[in-house]
Amino acid sequence: MTHAPLDPVDLTAKLIRCASVTPDEGGALVLLEQVLSEAGFACTRVDRGGVANLFARWGDKGANRSFGFNGHTDVVPVGDEAAWSVPPFGAVEKDGQLWGRGATDMKSGVAAFVAAAVDMVQEAPPEGAIILTITGDEEGDAVDGTTALLDWMQREGERMTACLVGEPTCPTHMGEMIKIGRRGSLSAWITLTGVQGHSAYPHRAVNPVPAMARLVDRLASHELDTGTAHFDPSTLAVVTIDTGNPTTNVIPAQCRATVNIRFNDAHSSQSLIGWMQSELDRIAEETGVTAAMEVKVSGESFLTPPGELSEMVTKAVEAETGVRPELSTSGGTSDARFVKDHCPVVEFGLVGKTMHQVDERVEVAQIRQLKAIYARILKDYFA
Amino acid sequence: MTHAPLDPVDLTAKLIRCASVTPDEGGALVLLEQVLSEAGFACTRVDRGGVANLFARWGDKGANRSFGFNGHTDVVPVGDEAAWSVPPFGAVEKDGQLWGRGATDMKSGVAAFVAAAVDMVQEAPPEGAIILTITGDEEGDAVDGTTALLDWMQREGERMTACLVGEPTCPTHMGEMIKIGRRGSLSAWITLTGVQGHSAYPHRAVNPVPAMARLVDRLASHELDTGTAHFDPSTLAVVTIDTGNPTTNVIPAQCRATVNIRFNDAHSSQSLIGWMQSELDRIAEETGVTAAMEVKVSGESFLTPPGELSEMVTKAVEAETGVRPELSTSGGTSDARFVKDHCPVVEFGLVGKTMHQVDERVEVAQIRQLKAIYARILKDYFA
Ligand SMILES: [Zn+2]
Ligand SMILES: [Zn+2]
Repeated sequence: MTHAPLDPVDLTAKLIRCASVTPDEGGALVLLEQVLSEAGFACTRVDRGGVANLFARWGDKGANRSFGFNGHTDVVPVGDEAAWSVPPFGAVEKDGQLWGRGATDMKSGVAAFVAAAVDMVQEAPPEGAIILTITGDEEGDAVDGTTALLDWMQREGERMTACLVGEPTCPTHMGEMIKIGRRGSLSAWITLTGVQGHSAYPHRAVNPVPAMARLVDRLASHELDTGTAHFDPSTLAVVTIDTGNPTTNVIPAQCRATVNIRFNDAHSSQSLIGWMQSELDRIAEETGVTAAMEVKVSGESFLTPPGELSEMVTKAVEAETGVRPELSTSGGTSDARFVKDHCPVVEFGLVGKTMHQVDERVEVAQIRQLKAIYARILKDYFA
Repeated sequence: MTHAPLDPVDLTAKLIRCASVTPDEGGALVLLEQVLSEAGFACTRVDRGGVANLFARWGDKGANRSFGFNGHTDVVPVGDEAAWSVPPFGAVEKDGQLWGRGATDMKSGVAAFVAAAVDMVQEAPPEGAIILTITGDEEGDAVDGTTALLDWMQREGERMTACLVGEPTCPTHMGEMIKIGRRGSLSAWITLTGVQGHSAYPHRAVNPVPAMARLVDRLASHELDTGTAHFDPSTLAVVTIDTGNPTTNVIPAQCRATVNIRFNDAHSSQSLIGWMQSELDRIAEETGVTAAMEVKVSGESFLTPPGELSEMVTKAVEAETGVRPELSTSGGTSDARFVKDHCPVVEFGLVGKTMHQVDERVEVAQIRQLKAIYARILKDYFA
C-alpha cells in the first residue's frame, strides 16, 4: 500500500483558516483529529476548563520507545486588522510565503510534525509509538492546556520517552537554534502598608513610599547569578511602582510594586520567593511598614542537558539545512516547561521573526524543510 | 467725643454670615470697608486676578511708626454640610461658643484687630499709622492675595514698620503660642524616562523604575539638617511614585514621583532645587535615564528672630491671659511668608483646633480676649 505524502503547506493553510484565537478551538483540532484518525492514530480529546486539547497515539500504549511531538493550534489575537496586508485568517500564499495569524507560531510546526508522523506510520511503521499532544491553550493562561494533556496521560498510563516541542526557535535563519532549556519566570506583587499622615509632620506617619524605593533598589541591584553552564544570568525587572496619591501634603498609607524574574537553573521559584520574603521582612523591620506579597509562578526553569536527544535533532537539522544549530536556553517560556517533568524535551521549529505581529508569515519552502527534519528525527529515533 | 467700643463678637458673627469661600468675597470685605471708613480709615480695594483684597490705613502714609495687621476673610469649603451641628454660615452662638465656617480661621482674628484698631483711633489716636491688609485669597493659591496688597503698597509708597498676622496660632489653649517663623515648603514632580522593553530582556531596555527607586532612596535618606536655633529639622516626604504599567512582561518607559520638602532657615528653595537637580543628574549618569523635574515653591522659610516685636506681643498675651506664650516656628505656611520681605512680622491668634473642620467654632470670651491683646499691643507700640 502506498500513500501520497501529506503536504504540510496545505495543512498549514487549512489550519490558518481556522480562527482559533485562544481559547477558541476554531475547528483546528477537529481537522487534525480527522487527519490523524484516518492515518490510524488513536485520538482522544482531552478538554478541560473550556480549553480543547488533542491527544493522538500511533502504536502501543507504554511502548519502550514513544516519541512525542508537542504543539499548539491556538493563536494570539490579530491586533489591528486594518494594518494587515492580507486577511489574517485567509492563508494567502504570495512571494513564496504563506501569510496569516499562526503561520509561524505555530500552525506550520504542528502541520509539519503531523505530516511527518502520518507519512511514517503509513510508509515505514516504527517499532514503538508516536504520540502527539496538541493544545488549544498555549498563548493564554496555559493552565488547562499541555498540563491537562500531561495530567490525563499520567492517569491513563500514557508515556513519551522523548519529546520535541515544535515552537519557532530560530531567530532569523532556518536551522540556527535548538532550545534545550528555558529560563523560569515568576511575578511578584508587593504591597507595603504604612500609616497615612501629613507631609509637614512625616515623623507622625509611616511612609511606605521611601520604604518601597529602598526595597526595590535592593531587589533590582542584587546579582542573582552570573549565568550557569547552559544559561545566561537570571534577570529581575521591577516593572511598576504605584501609589496613586494626587496630593502633595498627604503621606499615603500604601505603595505597590510588581517584580518579574526570569531565572536559570541556579534557582527555583521557591528559593527566589524565600529571598524576596527575607527582603520584605527586612524592610518591614527597618521602617515599620507591613509587607505583603503575592506570587505567580509561570514556570520553573528547565534544562535537558546536551546529549542523545539534542544530538539527534542537531544532526537532522544539519542534514536538511546545512546549518549546524546552536543549543540555546534563551527566550521566554514555552510548554516545554511542563513536558520536562514527563521526559527529556527539546524544542525546534521555524523562524519566529514575525510571530505575534501583524503580517505574520512563513517561507513555504521552510515548512517543507521542517517536515523533512521532523521525519528524519523520527527515522533516527526508531532506527 | 466718646464711642461705644466695637464688639468683636458681633463683627465676627456678621463676617461668618458672609459665605466667603475662596475666591468669593461674599460681602465680608465690603462690610469691613464700611466699618473702617466710618472710623476714619482710608480704604482701597486692591483686587487682582478675580480676588478681592482690602487695604486700610489710619494716619499718615509712610509714618515712622506704622503698625500693621494682616488677615484673611476667605474660608475653606464647608465640606459635608450634613455633618455640621449648625448651619455653617449661620453664626449660631451656643454653650459660650460662636459656631461657623471661619469662626477660628480667621474671621474672629480679623474682627478682633479691626475692633482694636477702630477703638484706638477713636479713643486715643496714636502718633503714627495703623495699616490693615485683609485678603480674600489665603486659603487658595495665595497668588493674588496678600502678595497683591504688598505689591500695591510698594508701588504706592505705603509701608508698615511691624506687622502681626492674626492667624490662629494656639494649638489647644489660648495664649500658648506665638509664631515667629514658619518653615518653607516646595514640591517637586520628577519624571524619569528610559527605554521600553520586554521583561525577559532587561539589558535591551532602560528601566526607569529601579532608577527612580534608587533616586528616591537617596533623597529620602538624606539628612537635610538637624534643626537650627529656632527651627525643627527640615523634612522631606516622597508622597508618591507612579508608573501605571499593568503588565508584567513589559518594562515601562517612564516613572514619576512627587517630593514635598518643608525646610527651615538652613536652606532656600534654590539650594534645595540645586541639590535635587544634582541627584537627578547623578541617577541619569548612572542609569542612562533622562531626568526631568518641575518645582513649585509654596514659600520660603521665614524667621523674625526673637526681639522687640515678639517681646511686645509676649507681654501683651501674658498680661491678658496669664499664659507666657512659646515662640514657635512650627506648622504649615501662612501669609507671613510674604509679609516678612516687607517688615518684621510675627503671628498670634486664637486656638486653631477646629479650623478647616466640620463644626468649626470659637470661645466667645476668647474673641474678646484677643481684641484686648491686640489693643494692648497697639498701645505699647505707640507708647
Ligand atoms: Zn507558540
Ligand atoms: Zn487662616
